[in-house]
Amino acid sequence: MNESMKTLGENRSEIRELFEYGKELSKKGLCICDLTLGNPTAKTPDWVTETLKAGLALPHIHDYSSIQGSYIARKKMANSLSKYGVAFSAENIILTCGAASSLCAVFKALTNNEKDEIIALSPYFPEYKVYVEGVNAKFKTVGFYGDDFSPNLSQLEEKINENTRAIIINSPNNPSGKVFSKEQIGLIAEILKKKSTTYNNPIYIVSDEPYREIVFDKEKAVSIASIYPDTIICYSFSKSLSIPGERIGYIALPDRICAINDLYVALLGSLRTMGYVCAPSVFQYLLENYKEEFSDFSIYESNKNTLLSCLKKLGFTCNNPQGAFYLMVKAPNGNSKEFSEKAKKIGLLIVPADSFGAEGWLRIATCVSKETVALACSLFEKLV
Amino acid sequence: MNESMKTLGENRSEIRELFEYGKELSKKGLCICDLTLGNPTAKTPDWVTETLKAGLALPHIHDYSSIQGSYIARKKMANSLSKYGVAFSAENIILTCGAASSLCAVFKALTNNEKDEIIALSPYFPEYKVYVEGVNAKFKTVGFYGDDFSPNLSQLEEKINENTRAIIINSPNNPSGKVFSKEQIGLIAEILKKKSTTYNNPIYIVSDEPYREIVFDKEKAVSIASIYPDTIICYSFSKSLSIPGERIGYIALPDRICAINDLYVALLGSLRTMGYVCAPSVFQYLLENYKEEFSDFSIYESNKNTLLSCLKKLGFTCNNPQGAFYLMVKAPNGNSKEFSEKAKKIGLLIVPADSFGAEGWLRIATCVSKETVALACSLFEKLV
Repeated sequence: MNESMKTLGENRSEIRELFEYGKELSKKGLCICDLTLGNPTAKTPDWVTETLKAGLALPHIHDYSSIQGSYIARKKMANSLSKYGVAFSAENIILTCGAASSLCAVFKALTNNEKDEIIALSPYFPEYKVYVEGVNAKFKTVGFYGDDFSPNLSQLEEKINENTRAIIINSPNNPSGKVFSKEQIGLIAEILKKKSTTYNNPIYIVSDEPYREIVFDKEKAVSIASIYPDTIICYSFSKSLSIPGERIGYIALPDRICAINDLYVALLGSLRTMGYVCAPSVFQYLLENYKEEFSDFSIYESNKNTLLSCLKKLGFTCNNPQGAFYLMVKAPNGNSKEFSEKAKKIGLLIVPADSFGAEGWLRIATCVSKETVALACSLFEKLV
Repeated sequence: MNESMKTLGENRSEIRELFEYGKELSKKGLCICDLTLGNPTAKTPDWVTETLKAGLALPHIHDYSSIQGSYIARKKMANSLSKYGVAFSAENIILTCGAASSLCAVFKALTNNEKDEIIALSPYFPEYKVYVEGVNAKFKTVGFYGDDFSPNLSQLEEKINENTRAIIINSPNNPSGKVFSKEQIGLIAEILKKKSTTYNNPIYIVSDEPYREIVFDKEKAVSIASIYPDTIICYSFSKSLSIPGERIGYIALPDRICAINDLYVALLGSLRTMGYVCAPSVFQYLLENYKEEFSDFSIYESNKNTLLSCLKKLGFTCNNPQGAFYLMVKAPNGNSKEFSEKAKKIGLLIVPADSFGAEGWLRIATCVSKETVALACSLFEKLV
């Protein structure tokens, strides 16, 4: 048996662990306030349901596609992405089974062995570590400073070496809801350009963008690919269309990215080795009929505001998310696990963010109902 | 860049290569007789379409599930599998994104490095090699004899050593349509039991069963798990329900399998490292409402019969498939690539089976329309 796989299977992610715990208690009829999982509550748009229904009636709807997926769908994606100021083509896009499979394929394509390094900016989604180590590469992290989680850029510069293949940026961020500013991306891009020249090897940005559309102040949304040429976009429709369980997304390479042909075929090869035959076909049909009509995200912002004002009133230190559907709160005594355990005892489930690279913080998922938010506020009060 | 991923991405499987070639020519309006891909033509059963439609209307239908998938669906699968005489439980089943992802997870869970070996019986589906080597293990093959592709059991015995972790059996077989007899499975089981004792380590059978239900003489269907206790079933609904593009299947461990707990968690760990978050949720709902009403496979048998009699009349050597939807034909001069090229020139696309471990043979997919079969017969005549 592969011992590391056993360990990974036994030690579920802390998020999943708490989520399963909550499900068990709920089954027993206990009242649980579950703020663990990023399961979007905003309704799936009607056009999604209608298109899928129409698709089901078509002959050949369930056939295999090419591994890269429907050309019509990829063309739609390319047109949509090209609006951000940098050109994308259908030929440089691969439809995938969500952002997770996209990331795994990218890490496998970019690395050869344990010498090769991928850097994540903290706080980061903890499964990144699993994905990077899953392809036998080295996972490194860079810290942050301040309660707004600004990346420690001098640390980034220090940690990059001749083995750095890519850095992961996730903006809007899970777990913090942080949206990286144009200036921050610009500074990171400068460092990467300099280092790529020094080591004579492109250092890619892997831009994990499942929360791309969930930015509260639209003015502040940033297209990373338009700032840094060597950006690989990993996208999922899980959050924008509220279909997280369906596993549909894509990898997009801007036309101007370095080594585009090699990269594209290496991605196809990676997907092949992992048994990704094609993205689910009825969801490929959905993308052939893609509309930029997303779920109504307003509930995420209002939930965030309600929770933020309640938590602040109670004396908690929080960050101020600009997007996604998470909020970070500091454990009063700095021990997030202890705080999570205490909260669990009164039925409030929140995830310690230590494994996200944010020691002493906890992640609150705000993609819940208004009622859950109200309950959460009263439980936080009880905790204090 | 990872060079082996590049090579894999550049050199598509021969099946896919010919399939894409055919698609290009068809687009140009040329008449193509495509016998390459295993895209089932039998209609998807109505209950599948109706259940999916009903599911789309439900709230929370698109939510994330646990990584192992819906309990209700797994329970249904366990009950269905337990009918073959050996017990299965929901707790030992994982819903996956099809047989390919199941196989990759199994190979990753069972092996640690390039020393560990997985053996396939020829002829075999060529992607097995990609999946096994994709987890850095060693892929070995065992030959066959005769035109009915009987496995060379003395070769199997010779090739098993202390590093053998599993052998892959695919019955009904792709590419040959062969259904292994009870006696053959019994003999293989004996060898594996003996060798497992010798090396004091279980040697698993990985039973890849996407064609399980497509057996022409139902009396001849064999449940491998009921004969050999250490059998891991990898299943896909691609063929039984004619939904190959949707990526839904499972891994099932019989309750009596060796090291069941370790194996189950190692499988969950493997899926995690490859970014398999969960099986597509609307298809999990389909399995919650599972009925053993499959596509009508009769066309596969009648196509096989028509092609077989036509090919024999023309003097070709063929095998006599007992299931699945493939048929093997020998290249008249023993050079299958040359024969495939010749056929291609008159618009007849058939895949050389050398990369399936059957040198000099070609695979004919019989999962096509009656019209395509008629066209194929006339083109074979033209070839002669």
